Amino acid sequence: MTKTNSGNFFEDFRLGQEIRHATPRTVSEGDVALYTALYGSRFAFNSSAEFARACGLAAAPLDDLAAFHVVFGKTVPDVSLNAVANLGYAAGRFGVPVFAGDTLATISTVIGLKENSNRQTGVVYVRSVGANQRGEMVVDYVRWVMVRKRDATAAVAGETVPDLPGSVAAADLAVPAGLDVAGYDTVLAGSPHVWDDYAAGERIDHVDGMTIEEAEHMMATRLWQNTAKVHFNQHTEGQGRFGRRLIYGGHIISLARALSFNGLGNAFKLAAINGGRHVNPTFAGDTLYAWSEVLEKLELPGRTDLGALRLRLVALKNRPAGGFPFKTEDGKEYDSAVVLDFDYTVLMPRRRLIP
Amino acid sequence: MTKTNSGNFFEDFRLGQEIRHATPRTVSEGDVALYTALYGSRFAFNSSAEFARACGLAAAPLDDLAAFHVVFGKTVPDVSLNAVANLGYAAGRFGVPVFAGDTLATISTVIGLKENSNRQTGVVYVRSVGANQRGEMVVDYVRWVMVRKRDATAAVAGETVPDLPGSVAAADLAVPAGLDVAGYDTVLAGSPHVWDDYAAGERIDHVDGMTIEEAEHMMATRLWQNTAKVHFNQHTEGQGRFGRRLIYGGHIISLARALSFNGLGNAFKLAAINGGRHVNPTFAGDTLYAWSEVLEKLELPGRTDLGALRLRLVALKNRPAGGFPFKTEDGKEYDSAVVLDFDYTVLMPRRRLIP
Amino acid sequence: MTKTNSGNFFEDFRLGQEIRHATPRTVSEGDVALYTALYGSRFAFNSSAEFARACGLAAAPLDDLAAFHVVFGKTVPDVSLNAVANLGYAAGRFGVPVFAGDTLATISTVIGLKENSNRQTGVVYVRSVGANQRGEMVVDYVRWVMVRKRDATAAVAGETVPDLPGSVAAADLAVPAGLDVAGYDTVLAGSPHVWDDYAAGERIDHVDGMTIEEAEHMMATRLWQNTAKVHFNQHTEGQGRFGRRLIYGGHIISLARALSFNGLGNAFKLAAINGGRHVNPTFAGDTLYAWSEVLEKLELPGRTDLGALRLRLVALKNRPAGGFPFKTEDGKEYDSAVVLDFDYTVLMPRRRLIP
Repeated sequence: MTKTNSGNFFEDFRLGQEIRHATPRTVSEGDVALYTALYGSRFAFNSSAEFARACGLAAAPLDDLAAFHVVFGKTVPDVSLNAVANLGYAAGRFGVPVFAGDTLATISTVIGLKENSNRQTGVVYVRSVGANQRGEMVVDYVRWVMVRKRDATAAVAGETVPDLPGSVAAADLAVPAGLDVAGYDTVLAGSPHVWDDYAAGERIDHVDGMTIEEAEHMMATRLWQNTAKVHFNQHTEGQGRFGRRLIYGGHIISLARALSFNGLGNAFKLAAINGGRHVNPTFAGDTLYAWSEVLEKLELPGRTDLGALRLRLVALKNRPAGGFPFKTEDGKEYDSAVVLDFDYTVLMPRRRLIP
Repeated sequence: MTKTNSGNFFEDFRLGQEIRHATPRTVSEGDVALYTALYGSRFAFNSSAEFARACGLAAAPLDDLAAFHVVFGKTVPDVSLNAVANLGYAAGRFGVPVFAGDTLATISTVIGLKENSNRQTGVVYVRSVGANQRGEMVVDYVRWVMVRKRDATAAVAGETVPDLPGSVAAADLAVPAGLDVAGYDTVLAGSPHVWDDYAAGERIDHVDGMTIEEAEHMMATRLWQNTAKVHFNQHTEGQGRFGRRLIYGGHIISLARALSFNGLGNAFKLAAINGGRHVNPTFAGDTLYAWSEVLEKLELPGRTDLGALRLRLVALKNRPAGGFPFKTEDGKEYDSAVVLDFDYTVLMPRRRLIP
Repeated sequence: MTKTNSGNFFEDFRLGQEIRHATPRTVSEGDVALYTALYGSRFAFNSSAEFARACGLAAAPLDDLAAFHVVFGKTVPDVSLNAVANLGYAAGRFGVPVFAGDTLATISTVIGLKENSNRQTGVVYVRSVGANQRGEMVVDYVRWVMVRKRDATAAVAGETVPDLPGSVAAADLAVPAGLDVAGYDTVLAGSPHVWDDYAAGERIDHVDGMTIEEAEHMMATRLWQNTAKVHFNQHTEGQGRFGRRLIYGGHIISLARALSFNGLGNAFKLAAINGGRHVNPTFAGDTLYAWSEVLEKLELPGRTDLGALRLRLVALKNRPAGGFPFKTEDGKEYDSAVVLDFDYTVLMPRRRLIP
């Protein structure tokens, strides 16, 4: 019997199956420093312990996407080692903030299965819940992936496609306990623009571009203990579909989010991932640009100090975002420069009328 | 109204203007590890908590240049986003040591303005003070940059060129509180050569060479949250002046300082930056060498255990430092291999006559 | 007198000579994060503080190889700066676990000297002991290197070749104080295969491959403060034996060990390095694969919960490990794809009959 993990194939999944993923991970100040070095993120809430304390937290939390990547990475050996494609995300909610010293573990449940008509592959829908050492939810999200079958003739039981929300409702967004933006200093945060200043439909060109190197995306992906082979092995990928190592989609999300600081500097906390698609592959040498659109302005129940913005974050490769490239004229396909279409919700301070 | 920061242009600066820079930054053990990984620095005072404690400190402080880079990085979005060139440094003094957990923030004051005769650009002189969460000065320095004008016809008020010292006087050098080199172990420090052994005029070839990779300088520059575009975007820089990404000058200073360990292993603490010029651009693939010249030996008021050396640190690209390449024969221009001419002051233990 | 370290040449070593190596190093959470980012290691014992606590430790210890690299790095400026080749390791024992905050220092003793017949070089045998700030042994090992002579005619006194054990005996393996695998969770560890499931002679193809980048191996090697010139200087190495920078052999050991997780997920603790040879050089761009052979199953005196496995770890470049490439048919030479032949001993939980 082989002792190596060859991952699950489509016919190995069962509806309702619960998977306790391996190798929990204690996050640290080292991860924080690497996150900054890899993405250049500058949100003051994550960058400065003093700033976070002024907002009522005990310390600066990790970037929400760092927590997401750790939680996601745990699922790869069980869920997507035999994946052909990572199709989408939905119903993602961020829970308690993650601090250096917390240990994260992930448990997933199979909530949907749909074989493809060619019987070579099928789509697996998984709800994954990342929790800290106290069992508090850190991030809870659904993703679906197209997974190979080991045996095309294998029968698949209980096919269901789950009903997924278009977006997370304002009432379901978690605000960190004790968060008080009365002490939020927009000068130190680097942007004067608060929730009140954004309008639904508004588009923001984040201007800056960032070129990606092989060493960077591989270090990032290993940091998250994501074991998907396509990111690491030039010896096989050189003979593969693209002739090169594919960059982990989450690396693109983090880079685009970091670029979005320039225009959304007060979008200090991710609250939800409503949806997301990796539209085109990205490779080392590509330069990433990003733009955002305000999809919706959300009031938060019981709070006048804080609002939420639902945003579309679009990442482009090797094309500046000035013209907001998105879909082809007929709206059917994405522009070939688009690599990420990410729908998420952030918390942002509102203007204080009486200071 | 655009919500992205396009930076200040020359005519936006006013003499005496104070800028509270955004995104304070808590430094950590993660930054220390990355500093070691990126530069290979080996000064025992920063490398070993036990060594630092034996010298009277509570823990190993961060490398002084790491603190400098963080403080400098904060100024970029406000001061040099539209810079054509970083012209020089002067009057730099290091204050209290920085420890993991400290939060650094920077405030700058415009102390000089001089429009160039072509009216397309002008030189801005800025004094920047980095302080920790207790408001204690960490590093205080002047730099001047050539900045583009938005509008060549714009009037510029109050032109002044500040009077800057040639070097920081011995009396103005800060010695960390509690520092006691009685417990300084030169064997563990890796060099038997103390202050007494160096002579003014002495030159040291630091022998080793270090090749720079794109991923390294970009990770470093992002770690310092330095947002200057020229370091990151091959898509635009490929069409630019050099056809490639320019390496952040501070990266070169740190690499050269790390190389200087071999010959200056007891130069354990930076005390001043007297001056500095980035003479030629550096690119990924270049191999850096360095040599030092002792410019001056300084006694420290009231201390017989400790002295200071004023040093010239010269970094070269793709040429070993054996012949001490510096300026052309007529002394008018730098040798084409020289990339950095850095004038700084270090603290170094003196020989104890009675052990 | 030159103030730079030109390292020891063969005739500078004396039998019995003790070398207190410079620049002790405090390890941190930053090193842990970088280790994960550079190697992608996933052993739960090192990855999760909660997992380590469930096994009776106060926190997650650093990866044993990280400790080894730090201890090894200290020896380079004194032992192998003028080395032609790193010939082998033996008699390596791991002592107390290393935790973030510990300060490591290394002392070496010359235990053997043998001049080569050409009189240009000689082999130096060194026993190096790394210890923490309490003087507790962390790792204690022998390595031998071929070192250049400064002067071929120089006489060499006291030649001896030490008698080295073929492997470390079970009775000499250290089990961390307080270690209790009753709380060891194989689901969280990521492998159901415990000591009982492995058989002497069994071979495991670790399946995955990892391509190496220049920035990665240089960052790793600098992190360990290893100053061997061949890893860093393309300007000179481009004219050298291989035309490129040589990757530090320890980087290959760590990568191969990380790959071995897939098949040896419960090999949670290194106990011994019995032997090791870097058989062929590795360069950036090479893709590393690995396979293991169980050489011996060892019972540990007084313990029924824990066993040891003596393993051969073979790393290959640019060839998958499926066919277990090792030596040429006549057994005299290594297959050209083999880069590492590493003989080490791990601790692994045994199956609990009464849960």
